[in-house]
Amino acid sequence: MARGAPRPTGEAFNALPVAVDAMGGDNAPGEILAGARQVVEAGAVGVLLVGVPDQLGDLGGIPLLACTEVIGMDDDPGNGVRRKKDSSLVRAAEAVRDGQAMAMVSAGNTGATMASALLRMGRLPGVIRPAIATPIPDLKKAYPTVLLDAGANAETTVPMLVQFAQMGAAYSAERYGVTRPRVALLSIGEEKSKGTPLVKEAHAILAAGGNGDFDFVGNVEGRDFFDDQADVIVTDGFTGNVALKTLEGTLRFLMSTLTDILTRPEVADAAGVLFPHLLPLASTFDPEQTGGAMLLGVDGVCVISHGSSGSVAMVNAITVAHDVAVGGLVEAVASSVRPPTEG
Amino acid sequence: MARGAPRPTGEAFNALPVAVDAMGGDNAPGEILAGARQVVEAGAVGVLLVGVPDQLGDLGGIPLLACTEVIGMDDDPGNGVRRKKDSSLVRAAEAVRDGQAMAMVSAGNTGATMASALLRMGRLPGVIRPAIATPIPDLKKAYPTVLLDAGANAETTVPMLVQFAQMGAAYSAERYGVTRPRVALLSIGEEKSKGTPLVKEAHAILAAGGNGDFDFVGNVEGRDFFDDQADVIVTDGFTGNVALKTLEGTLRFLMSTLTDILTRPEVADAAGVLFPHLLPLASTFDPEQTGGAMLLGVDGVCVISHGSSGSVAMVNAITVAHDVAVGGLVEAVASSVRPPTEG
Repeated sequence: MARGAPRPTGEAFNALPVAVDAMGGDNAPGEILAGARQVVEAGAVGVLLVGVPDQLGDLGGIPLLACTEVIGMDDDPGNGVRRKKDSSLVRAAEAVRDGQAMAMVSAGNTGATMASALLRMGRLPGVIRPAIATPIPDLKKAYPTVLLDAGANAETTVPMLVQFAQMGAAYSAERYGVTRPRVALLSIGEEKSKGTPLVKEAHAILAAGGNGDFDFVGNVEGRDFFDDQADVIVTDGFTGNVALKTLEGTLRFLMSTLTDILTRPEVADAAGVLFPHLLPLASTFDPEQTGGAMLLGVDGVCVISHGSSGSVAMVNAITVAHDVAVGGLVEAVASSVRPPTEG
Repeated sequence: MARGAPRPTGEAFNALPVAVDAMGGDNAPGEILAGARQVVEAGAVGVLLVGVPDQLGDLGGIPLLACTEVIGMDDDPGNGVRRKKDSSLVRAAEAVRDGQAMAMVSAGNTGATMASALLRMGRLPGVIRPAIATPIPDLKKAYPTVLLDAGANAETTVPMLVQFAQMGAAYSAERYGVTRPRVALLSIGEEKSKGTPLVKEAHAILAAGGNGDFDFVGNVEGRDFFDDQADVIVTDGFTGNVALKTLEGTLRFLMSTLTDILTRPEVADAAGVLFPHLLPLASTFDPEQTGGAMLLGVDGVCVISHGSSGSVAMVNAITVAHDVAVGGLVEAVASSVRPPTEG
């Protein structure tokens, strides 16, 4: 389908495959292909691989959108997208734009994934800047908390924060079925007087309603992530990225220290007894299980899987991409973005 | 000694007690007094309690600086300090200013502790704003990493960040004996092009030398706290507070989940075997053990202990306050603060 042609809708859209960047991530292409193969074998979701044929080997019958270039993990995102027009990332985003795929998934260069999606799919009407929404598991409820912006925008304005609240609520509703999500602002104290001028102004607007289908529950702090305080936590992309990486780094540090202890020969029997008790915790916080982060605010579904994704992460990311695309995430985000003074 | 009189120096200074806010914290006055008593009984460090006599009971012979007011945990810091001139926090800060104590320690209202220290002790010459320096244990080295600003200044400028690097390095050297501390900026990528304009400008100045007795090692990310990347991590007070609370909240969440698992009756034997192996980890990250945060940049030693401090935390906080006061922390911080363009 050519650029600019109307996208398929209804059943035709639902029959589209998910475009998967076969070249992106630390374990590409092996683990990416393995994940794609598992999805295709399961039968419910179609995959369109995007990659350089020479580097892929046997695709097991999965369709390929062939390209000639790869944007590396260390390439500058802007330059990469501008110069490598025939790269797997750019072609995957074009496949969504041109109605060849319902969504794109990449475990590659995060910045270049965002830039490809933004430049090729375009922003949804009224969206100031897209944001990265990342799910954070919370054992106190049945579904994750959504943190955004997790790093798309180092600099953020008040209207952007208000839109993040709107888009994040639409995502929580669509992906996790939360009827009226609780939205909080990340700050350094619960009182509305706490934080930067940015946070205080956004607080005032959101407290006045924010014109969204959500309940604003005020500020939360860094210690509240696992405490069922909110369904959506809104912050600027600098703070969000630092908080997310601090959380992930602390989890990884403790999990690996614990693993070191449990694998000492002298505690082998005890570790064996505890293993089944620890498994649900390890599984909940396994980065392979989250399904990846979502770029909200672009005109298409774009899932950003972590760089170290294995086949399990790819299966989850592709499945999530399919499910939210069919569920109408893009339409829900588009209609969530309204001027906060309205209605 | 009256206000404005020259402070004792040398042996006379070293013989001064540490002023301890007996009214501050969730467990005041019981645990505060218990901690003070342990310190005094050990014999090496003197304590001057500051509090409301009626509310304290038997002091076991520890000297008391009596006052009539208390700034509560929820009081507004600025108003509290302005209106409650005879509060334990304000009197403790005055005791340091007036040469009656070598240092102050409080587990009370953090904002009011900072305000009392700032307004009564004053800033050191050249210091733009004091910052809170918090130790973060790192199992990969023998001493903690210092994070600052952990929340004193929600809004921070480039010259402030450069001073935080200088003061943090002086603190790491004085408290942990690090000869030439490695200083890093907290950002959202290792490259100097990553982050807000604030971070990028500070990076350029620090990379050019920063005029301090430290080595600038560039940016670190939130995931690097436990990875022996730096001895001092510098950031604005908003990001620092969010990162610290995220780190603490994640640790507490995992520790408490683990405790829940280990106390299940069916794993009692296995838990007993593992307990001695887990103890060093639990002890390293026990908030009672860190000795509290330090307010750097004021003309006196001010230790901010966490609100839930028990007697062990107070013993550690009082001991740390004594040791850095005798070691010359204030003088070291004062001489660390230099214009970055010099020498």
